[in-house]
Amino acid sequence: MLGECLENVRKKAPLVHNITNYVTVNDVANIILACGASPIMADEQEEVEEITTICNGLNINIGTLNKRTIPSMLLAGKKANELGHVVVLDPVGAGASTLRTDMALKLLEEVHFTVIRGNISEIKTLALGSGSTKGVDADVADAVNEENLEKSIAFAKEFAKQTKSIIAITGAIDLVADETCCYVIRNGRAEMSRITGTGCQLSGMLTAYVVANPENKLEAAAAAVCAMGVAGEIAYDLLQPKEGNSTYRNRIIDTIDQMDSKCLTNGAKFEIR
Amino acid sequence: MLGECLENVRKKAPLVHNITNYVTVNDVANIILACGASPIMADEQEEVEEITTICNGLNINIGTLNKRTIPSMLLAGKKANELGHVVVLDPVGAGASTLRTDMALKLLEEVHFTVIRGNISEIKTLALGSGSTKGVDADVADAVNEENLEKSIAFAKEFAKQTKSIIAITGAIDLVADETCCYVIRNGRAEMSRITGTGCQLSGMLTAYVVANPENKLEAAAAAVCAMGVAGEIAYDLLQPKEGNSTYRNRIIDTIDQMDSKCLTNGAKFEIR
Amino acid sequence: MLGECLENVRKKAPLVHNITNYVTVNDVANIILACGASPIMADEQEEVEEITTICNGLNINIGTLNKRTIPSMLLAGKKANELGHVVVLDPVGAGASTLRTDMALKLLEEVHFTVIRGNISEIKTLALGSGSTKGVDADVADAVNEENLEKSIAFAKEFAKQTKSIIAITGAIDLVADETCCYVIRNGRAEMSRITGTGCQLSGMLTAYVVANPENKLEAAAAAVCAMGVAGEIAYDLLQPKEGNSTYRNRIIDTIDQMDSKCLTNGAKFEIR
Repeated sequence: MLGECLENVRKKAPLVHNITNYVTVNDVANIILACGASPIMADEQEEVEEITTICNGLNINIGTLNKRTIPSMLLAGKKANELGHVVVLDPVGAGASTLRTDMALKLLEEVHFTVIRGNISEIKTLALGSGSTKGVDADVADAVNEENLEKSIAFAKEFAKQTKSIIAITGAIDLVADETCCYVIRNGRAEMSRITGTGCQLSGMLTAYVVANPENKLEAAAAAVCAMGVAGEIAYDLLQPKEGNSTYRNRIIDTIDQMDSKCLTNGAKFEIR
Repeated sequence: MLGECLENVRKKAPLVHNITNYVTVNDVANIILACGASPIMADEQEEVEEITTICNGLNINIGTLNKRTIPSMLLAGKKANELGHVVVLDPVGAGASTLRTDMALKLLEEVHFTVIRGNISEIKTLALGSGSTKGVDADVADAVNEENLEKSIAFAKEFAKQTKSIIAITGAIDLVADETCCYVIRNGRAEMSRITGTGCQLSGMLTAYVVANPENKLEAAAAAVCAMGVAGEIAYDLLQPKEGNSTYRNRIIDTIDQMDSKCLTNGAKFEIR
Repeated sequence: MLGECLENVRKKAPLVHNITNYVTVNDVANIILACGASPIMADEQEEVEEITTICNGLNINIGTLNKRTIPSMLLAGKKANELGHVVVLDPVGAGASTLRTDMALKLLEEVHFTVIRGNISEIKTLALGSGSTKGVDADVADAVNEENLEKSIAFAKEFAKQTKSIIAITGAIDLVADETCCYVIRNGRAEMSRITGTGCQLSGMLTAYVVANPENKLEAAAAAVCAMGVAGEIAYDLLQPKEGNSTYRNRIIDTIDQMDSKCLTNGAKFEIR
């Protein structure tokens, strides 16, 4: 079934509108192409509604957000909601500054997100910051691990319920949850954190996956998370002596480019809770 | 003769001012260096006239254009015209939003471009949008192919006549035309479209080629288009198993870096019509 | 001792706030990760003071500066000074436009920099532009070489004295000086100038090195310069036939990622004058 999600991306080649940061934008574009979709980057207020209208999904990433792009995010998000498009939020750095936290919360208020993907501290900032601490346990501040897994799953499901979004929390163990069901994914490698933007890349690719699988959004989101993790494992094994994080970045994107449904199905390590 | 165009770039090392998008800007800088020229990126209104003055050519690319950079493009373009510098337009996404279409048309009105390089739909948007549909056949909306080649060449020549620019339409078959003469180029590979920014890269390199060959601008533009296509072919053959679009991107730039006049001359597949 | 500087970066993993250009920002982030530190990019006025507060050092790079980011640089710089953080200036293109020169000088006036790193013409612009030409010999406009080495060292020391900063002038021969002592470094390769942003990358990494070695700032800055040069040499030797500047870029970052203290100590070629 994960493999089918991948194949649907290649078959449908969805067009993904990205309003994203200038640090990792090139890698985001290339991984979206690698998985079989097409990226458009546009962040000017005057054009974002039109651009998002011709696309199939919208990926909003608040890394390097600024006064010029904030209104663009809100406009594009609302328009995408109107049109029933998939909208993904990557709240990069929520919690690191008031501006980012406030902006992420404002986006949550004004836009409905199909998926919210971040690390545990970003997601926790959104959950706690929302003023509703019901069911949100500060204990999950720690990275998801085998010890706090139960609690973390409950947190993810609860936040999914509150936001009516799929919640993807990525880290050593990844969780992808809606209010009733949680994929617990154990793919990927620690070394991926030595590359800038693997999270941003995943959010871009995940948008394409969810767009291409409208009947199975939760599974599609999980498939994208597994694909990134599997690519991280395969690419690591392909590294030659003296190769480091820059080549690792290239090899991960290459692996997504070359990945077929069998490779994803065989490599994915997950359970559903 | 194409080989001479390449050698002139390496010999003269022109300085190219780029006002370009933040998605592919790093690759544009590296391919300009690879071909033997030097890039400067500067897009702030207050400095673009001064920067373009110390450069030999200007490359304007409207991908991720915004309110801050639009006046910069107009100012730099006019100043470059005053100085008799080569100016290249890459109308990324013209037709995809009103802002981009209007901006591209405004640039065409206020700035004379030595070369306009885009895909067929971008170029057609400019040609039809200009209000002058004389000789502009809507049928050429389709990608240039063997069936519509005659018509496409006529379209390119006619638009070259209207704009007094060299028109470069890139796709499976590339056309590089002035009002009387058209290079029909059959280099490159379909896989190049799985890399973000090969078009942007070409526009940057093409600016350097035209600057370095002031007596043979049409041929220089064709040489740059051939060089990109030949690099796409050679780089593809160099790909190892499990390598994908990210490494392909690197190998294309590498191949431009390593290309000599013999390689270009031997690899170029074109006819003049 | 240089090796110790490297090890301290890996051990302490400092967080570096970067306000930098959009051309080379991805490579800057990846090389900061490669050396063992962590990058944050943030340039919006409203958040830069908060972001720089949670970081350990600040790297200000004026390539593609613009009206929106200029106040951010000043605010972040002053806040970092207040907090006693390491602040590095990379005056990209100072001398190329009035805006850049004025902005670099304004930064020098309003912010104290721990290190200023640029090529000779950028540094000379700062030194001469400051209105104080005492001890600043226009002859050093030329690249540092064996003939003008004595004078160049004197210039670097004098400018270090005036600014109370460590001055790093990089080129064929690199100088890293405070007012009494100058590292003369003969690492690196000419081919590094065919990659965009090796200077920007160095400034980012250098910030991490100086942060991680508060007791030995001059040596730490010299260690970062040596590390970049050694990486340029090793990476060049690793290049395979047909590989060019794009792969060279990746291999340099890879080499920083893989470098240990022994490799740096063995490869560094410097004298102290």
